[in-house]
Amino acid sequence: MKIAVLPGDGIGPEIVNEAVKVLKVLDLPFQLDEAKVGGAAFDAHGHPLPEHTLNLAMASDAVLFGSVGDWKYDKLERHLRPEQSILGLRKNMGLFANFRPAICYPQLTHASSLKPELVAGLDILIIRELTGDIYFGQPRGRREAPDGEFKGAPEAFDTMRYSKPEIERIAHVAFQAARKRNKRVTSVDKANVLETFQFWKDVVTEVHAQYPDIELDHMYVDNAAMQLVKAPKRFDVVVTGNMFGDILSDEASMLTGSIGMLPSASLNAKGQGLYEPSHGSAPDIAGKGVANPLATILSAAMMLRFSLNQEEAAARIERAVQAVLEQGLRTPDIHSEGTQKVGTVEMGEAVVAALKAQ
Amino acid sequence: MKIAVLPGDGIGPEIVNEAVKVLKVLDLPFQLDEAKVGGAAFDAHGHPLPEHTLNLAMASDAVLFGSVGDWKYDKLERHLRPEQSILGLRKNMGLFANFRPAICYPQLTHASSLKPELVAGLDILIIRELTGDIYFGQPRGRREAPDGEFKGAPEAFDTMRYSKPEIERIAHVAFQAARKRNKRVTSVDKANVLETFQFWKDVVTEVHAQYPDIELDHMYVDNAAMQLVKAPKRFDVVVTGNMFGDILSDEASMLTGSIGMLPSASLNAKGQGLYEPSHGSAPDIAGKGVANPLATILSAAMMLRFSLNQEEAAARIERAVQAVLEQGLRTPDIHSEGTQKVGTVEMGEAVVAALKAQ
Ligand SMILES: [Mg+2]
Ligand SMILES: [Mg+2]
Repeated sequence: MKIAVLPGDGIGPEIVNEAVKVLKVLDLPFQLDEAKVGGAAFDAHGHPLPEHTLNLAMASDAVLFGSVGDWKYDKLERHLRPEQSILGLRKNMGLFANFRPAICYPQLTHASSLKPELVAGLDILIIRELTGDIYFGQPRGRREAPDGEFKGAPEAFDTMRYSKPEIERIAHVAFQAARKRNKRVTSVDKANVLETFQFWKDVVTEVHAQYPDIELDHMYVDNAAMQLVKAPKRFDVVVTGNMFGDILSDEASMLTGSIGMLPSASLNAKGQGLYEPSHGSAPDIAGKGVANPLATILSAAMMLRFSLNQEEAAARIERAVQAVLEQGLRTPDIHSEGTQKVGTVEMGEAVVAALKAQ
Repeated sequence: MKIAVLPGDGIGPEIVNEAVKVLKVLDLPFQLDEAKVGGAAFDAHGHPLPEHTLNLAMASDAVLFGSVGDWKYDKLERHLRPEQSILGLRKNMGLFANFRPAICYPQLTHASSLKPELVAGLDILIIRELTGDIYFGQPRGRREAPDGEFKGAPEAFDTMRYSKPEIERIAHVAFQAARKRNKRVTSVDKANVLETFQFWKDVVTEVHAQYPDIELDHMYVDNAAMQLVKAPKRFDVVVTGNMFGDILSDEASMLTGSIGMLPSASLNAKGQGLYEPSHGSAPDIAGKGVANPLATILSAAMMLRFSLNQEEAAARIERAVQAVLEQGLRTPDIHSEGTQKVGTVEMGEAVVAALKAQ
C-alpha cells in the first residue's frame, strides 16, 4: 500500500506528522513517501506542484495531504499559487468524487450553533461531484448581451453542463457509499428550473435501478439548505453537483460547530484518493504546536476505508479519536470549560496511546 | 392608492381577509379591488391569470397576494397550473427585486433550530434578483456534449448570465433599502470561480461609489451559507443573484423557525410591488380557520413601506403584530406551552384591536 505524504504549508506539516504516527502504529505494510507541495514546493523547486510530487501522487494508492496556502504567496501569478497544486492533483488524478462528512461528536455537541437535540449523533456524508458543472463548463466569459431585455449591454456568462457518464459515475459512488452506511441517498437538484438538474435527476433515478437495497429520494437545493438547518439528522448520504455540493457541504460542516474535526476525501474511478482535513492551512497558528490534528487523523481513517480497503483499521482509528475526546483532551479550537487543553503532539500521541490500548 | 387584492387558493382567502381588515382600520385612502388568481381563477375562468386579473394588477400601485396552488391542479398542463399566475405577474410587471426578510421575534426565539442567543433579535433582509441568472438564461437544453472528457455523450446544459443594467438596478435597490435600515450591504457572489459573479462583484462595487454612507462587503456563497448558521446577526441587507438568493433566502427563513411569520415582496423599477407571505397555500388546512395570517399582515406592512410610501402606517402594523405576540396569542403553527391558541380570525381581529389601541 503506497501512500504519498504531502504535508504542504502552514499547519500542514504538524498535523500530517501526527497522522503518520497513527498510521505507523497500525502495523500494516504501508510504504510512505513524502514530498513537498504548495508554497513549500514553490520555495524549494519554483512550482507548487513539481513533477516529482505529481508523479509520486499518481503512482501511489492514496495521497495524505495536509494543507496549502499562506498570505506570503498571495502576490504570485495565479498558476504559481499554492492552491494550484490541489487543482493540479484533482485534474491529473481525475478525482471526481468529493466526500465531505459532517459528524457531530457527542462530546462536542455544545459547539454547534444548533440546539443539542438536533445535532447530537449527526452523521451525514455529502458527496459532491468535483470536476464538472458550472465551475468548469465552457464557454464562459464577457461579451455584449446577444439577446434579451438588455440586448447589446455588457454581460458575463457561464455554462452549467453535466454529461450522462459524469452523473452515472458519481451516482454509483453515492449508492456504494450508502451501502457501507444507512442505505439512504438523497439526490439534490433543481429539476424544476434547470435542464441540467432535470437530467441529473433522470440519470440518478436510472442508476438507482441497480441498487434496489438503497432508498433514494430527491430534494430541491433550496429545500435541502432549509432541511439541513431544520432537521439535519434526516440525511444519510447526500449526492449533488459541484456548485450545490460546495454550498451544502460548507453549510453542513458549520452545523457541527467544529470544523477542526472534519476530514475529507476526493476519489477517482480506480479508488485512488486524496485525503485532507476540511480546514485550511491556518498560517496564523503554524509552528505553534496548537493545531488540531484530528481532522487529518480522521482523513487517514477515510483513506484506509475508501482507498486501501482496510475497514477494520479505519474503524480502530475512529474509535481511538472517540476515546481521546472521552478522556477530555481538547486542542484550543475545541476547548471548553471542564476539559483539558492539549497541543498538537499531545493530541496525536493520545490517539496513538488509545490505539495501543484497544 | 390602488391595491389589487388577489387571495388565490388554499388558505389564501382566509389570510388575505384578515390583512384587508387591518388595512381598512388605518383610515388611509385605499382603493381595494379584488380578483381571482391561481386555481380559483382557473375554476372560474379557465386560466390561472385571466386578462382582467392581470390588467387590474398592472393598473394598481401594489398587489396584495395570498397564495396559489392545490394538489388537485397537479395534473393540468404546465401553462394552466396555479403557479404560472405568479410567474406571469412577475414577468408582465417586471418584478426584478425580491425582498425576503428573516426576522426572529423575541417571543418566538425558542422555535428556531439555533440557540436563542444566536437568533434573538435577528433581522436580515435578503434581496434576491428575480428575473435573470441561470433560472432564465438561454440557451439551455439537451444535446451531445460538443467537447470535453465525454465528447459525444448525452448532456444537458443551462446558461448563467447577468448584464450590467440588471446588476446595477438590483444594486441600487439594495443600497437604498440599506439606507432605511442599518446601512450595511453584503453582496454574495462566487467571483473566485464564475465569470458572471466576478462581473456581479465589479458592477456592485461600481454602483457602491454612489452610496458613500453605506458599508459594502463581499462574501462567497458557500461562506454565506456557513455564516448564516454560525452568526446570522452579522448581516443587515444581503444582495445576490436569483439562484444564490433562492438558496440563501430559504436557509435564512428556516433560521427563524417560524415561516408562518415571514412576509415577502417583489418590486419593479417604478416601485410597484407584489406582496405575499413566504409560506405556501397549505391546502391541508384550508377552510379550517387555523392558518396564521401574520405573514400576510406583515406583507401588507411591507406594501405600505415600499410601494405606497406610508412608513408610519407600516411601522404601526409591525408594532401591532408585536403587541399580539406579547399578549401571548398564537395560531397553531407557532403555539407553545403557556401561550393562548387562537384561530385565523381571532388573530386578525387582535391585530386590529392592537392598532386601535395605539
Ligand atoms: Mg466551499
Ligand atoms: Mg426557494
